[in-house]
Amino acid sequence: MGPDTATGADGPHPGCSRAHAAVRTDSDTPDLGELAARLSAGALVTDPEVVASHSFDKALFCPVGTARGLVRARTVDDVVATMRFASAHRLPVVTQGARTGLSGAANAVDGCLLLDVARMDEILAIDPLEQTCRVQPGVINQDLKNALAEHGLAYPPDPGSVAISTIGGNVATNAGGMCCVKYGVTKDYVRGMTVVLADGTVTTLGRSTAKGVAGLDLAALFVGSEGTLGVIVEITLALRAAMPPALTAVGLFPDTASAGTAVAEYMASGAGPSMLELLDGRTIRAINAYGNFGLPAAAGALLLVQSNAPGQSAVAELEAFQEIAERNGGLEVHFSDDPADSELLVAARRAVSPALERQAHLVGGGELIDDICIPRSRLGEFFSRLEAIEAARGVEIFTAGHAGDGNMHPTVIFDARDEESTAAAQAAFAEIMQLGLDLGGTITGEHGVGYLKRDWLDRELDAGAALLHRRIREALDPLGILNPGKVFT
Amino acid sequence: MGPDTATGADGPHPGCSRAHAAVRTDSDTPDLGELAARLSAGALVTDPEVVASHSFDKALFCPVGTARGLVRARTVDDVVATMRFASAHRLPVVTQGARTGLSGAANAVDGCLLLDVARMDEILAIDPLEQTCRVQPGVINQDLKNALAEHGLAYPPDPGSVAISTIGGNVATNAGGMCCVKYGVTKDYVRGMTVVLADGTVTTLGRSTAKGVAGLDLAALFVGSEGTLGVIVEITLALRAAMPPALTAVGLFPDTASAGTAVAEYMASGAGPSMLELLDGRTIRAINAYGNFGLPAAAGALLLVQSNAPGQSAVAELEAFQEIAERNGGLEVHFSDDPADSELLVAARRAVSPALERQAHLVGGGELIDDICIPRSRLGEFFSRLEAIEAARGVEIFTAGHAGDGNMHPTVIFDARDEESTAAAQAAFAEIMQLGLDLGGTITGEHGVGYLKRDWLDRELDAGAALLHRRIREALDPLGILNPGKVFT
Repeated sequence: MGPDTATGADGPHPGCSRAHAAVRTDSDTPDLGELAARLSAGALVTDPEVVASHSFDKALFCPVGTARGLVRARTVDDVVATMRFASAHRLPVVTQGARTGLSGAANAVDGCLLLDVARMDEILAIDPLEQTCRVQPGVINQDLKNALAEHGLAYPPDPGSVAISTIGGNVATNAGGMCCVKYGVTKDYVRGMTVVLADGTVTTLGRSTAKGVAGLDLAALFVGSEGTLGVIVEITLALRAAMPPALTAVGLFPDTASAGTAVAEYMASGAGPSMLELLDGRTIRAINAYGNFGLPAAAGALLLVQSNAPGQSAVAELEAFQEIAERNGGLEVHFSDDPADSELLVAARRAVSPALERQAHLVGGGELIDDICIPRSRLGEFFSRLEAIEAARGVEIFTAGHAGDGNMHPTVIFDARDEESTAAAQAAFAEIMQLGLDLGGTITGEHGVGYLKRDWLDRELDAGAALLHRRIREALDPLGILNPGKVFT
Repeated sequence: MGPDTATGADGPHPGCSRAHAAVRTDSDTPDLGELAARLSAGALVTDPEVVASHSFDKALFCPVGTARGLVRARTVDDVVATMRFASAHRLPVVTQGARTGLSGAANAVDGCLLLDVARMDEILAIDPLEQTCRVQPGVINQDLKNALAEHGLAYPPDPGSVAISTIGGNVATNAGGMCCVKYGVTKDYVRGMTVVLADGTVTTLGRSTAKGVAGLDLAALFVGSEGTLGVIVEITLALRAAMPPALTAVGLFPDTASAGTAVAEYMASGAGPSMLELLDGRTIRAINAYGNFGLPAAAGALLLVQSNAPGQSAVAELEAFQEIAERNGGLEVHFSDDPADSELLVAARRAVSPALERQAHLVGGGELIDDICIPRSRLGEFFSRLEAIEAARGVEIFTAGHAGDGNMHPTVIFDARDEESTAAAQAAFAEIMQLGLDLGGTITGEHGVGYLKRDWLDRELDAGAALLHRRIREALDPLGILNPGKVFT
């Protein structure tokens, strides 16, 4: 993020245009007092400064519109009243959680109502027998994890924003994280949900049982829909027994390509690591500069591997990693079963985000975080072509990512005050998405489309799929009031 | 199934009404010769006997209409030509695989074209590095498993029809099976697919990578859509490393309620069995009568448990089962690490289907297989209420099922030649679905809705969800030609 977010300021990010997509707005000025009267006391906020400070998420280079007002919903009824009012007056509605998204999906559009569900943050039920829970959308991921731990239960998905992002936002973007390589993504844990549709209808989708095939899987359709189909007001999640502690190994490599090849071979061997993360040399040094992590500064790349397989199986899995790493040019592999070592290494990996924010701050605040996912077998090729993009565009790219899933986050750091640097960074950012597509992958593995990548979605989808998207959106939101201009152009 | 299917005869099942849902048909008679000219040579079959013999699946009590013709598609182009022709003439199209479904979803509707994709049966690619494969829809599940085993890979979903059903049909119904308790259902393995839409448009949905959030999850929407949204012509599946061999335990109980309670407690303990099946006493005796399996005939219920956890963990998991079984009234628990014992027990479990067919044959051919899924914690209550239904209706219910998932198959056996017996069986069948709903579950865990349960879908869905179903179906199939009258009334 730019320097202002690094310091916690409230303004939109540098590079955030005030321009915006054409959105449908009411030519009459609706009386927001009418809406306020139907909401919980104090739920409607119209103070322009407060509304403006809630008008954007953590994406750069995305339009930020001027919202008409902010609804801080406390109840399902607040959401229903908001959607009825918005439908009656054809007002755009942008649903927001913690606004930690990286693609601008929560940014205001002109004339919209911001619908903040972060205060609907109750854990409604934890069922240890059935290993499920029901939560409101504003529950913070880590808070849920903590509450579940008391019952010996776990909700695995762990996006980088785990400490600050909401379950509702995680569901709306199908969030991932470091555990996905073994435990899957958010959609693998969503059994059912209650949503408020564009016209204010409340409906429950999906199921609460382990299996179920009654009708279309509409809950799955809503996962990752980024606020374009309805407002999620309650979620039923599958849980699992608390995960056992993991053994950790660190492998050092002379370069990213050899690390990528080792990942591909290790995963193809049938290994089931509970974490397999990659940091390139630049990112290692940025982390060391940010905190006192003591990572090996000379390495060209580092792989962080964990196994929580039972008993001696974890050791066997890490020994297999060592063997494959060494065969692929790995320089050193260290093991540890000391939880303190593991925690420090995971903390170092989690420090990528603030470390790169700081790095950006040093050179002029520009940071574009990409998020492609490719077949693991093509990681080696990916890294060599990434180097070519760097060289051709004269930009600095820091790469970390969930290598075990082929989900990489090359981050372009640049001087946002300088037009030429900014243009080069944006060109590199686009070329990275194209590289993802060229290698048989996707433009976004876990961050979503929002505004940031909406021009690219049509490159990934064929004409038929693009048409289906539009038809389904129209079927669910005939007035086009739900997060208009996001995901689709 | 009825006696005629038990003997492999081609006629529709006893009890299969010739009445049918009102379907849209062309008042003009379209010239099928035009269609034939656009298809692979010999793909169009109009011989009434052949067409009639392809007009139904394995469901009882479902209408079987009179089809206009049968297309045995060999290529995607055949499917495209069929859908274009059907759209031009507004002809209903019923897509079929191996017609092993249990809900009538593949049954003909009057005036339809049957679109059989079973001959599109090529495994297009197996990628051991990425652990994925691409298959045509007609590939038989077991054939795929066999091909993958040569690469050390596995595709876990294993419906009872694994030896004869197609992957396309498995995807269209989101098939489950015995492995689900540890390995999930079909949807957990579908990454992407190519479909032909109602108007003949070919489009690719989903992705081939481990993660991806570019746009709506339309591949997930098509999984379980029972031929109502489009025709699946290619599927990209996620695979996993071959599963390790399992240890097996058998637990005997005095009655089903105590077995159900043991299941609930065992699963809540955080156990991760690779199989957890339940057979009631009647089913045990039906299996013994069918084959020489030597199951303990006096038991009131039997639990079959496997663990394939690595090393000593499997033993620990089965010892935990033993302890919980005994605490819940279990009479005996036997262990075995002899693969021959395991195979015999699994074969006995797989014999439920033919054993109950034979049982039905003995009393007059009537068999209604139900498929509810409930919270595991309510299994004990489920069994006592099931006994009450039996008593009140004077019917015989044989129950087996995937108890670890709460997915039970109570099967009502009756005299299909006798009206009173048939009426009592149908009433009991409906009451079992209502019991599923009453206990917080679903009317179908893995068999789908088709014709058999379409009147019940609206009881499970609330008004909003029912409306969304209709809107999405209309958005994708505006002429209403895709499997009309199925799933929805």
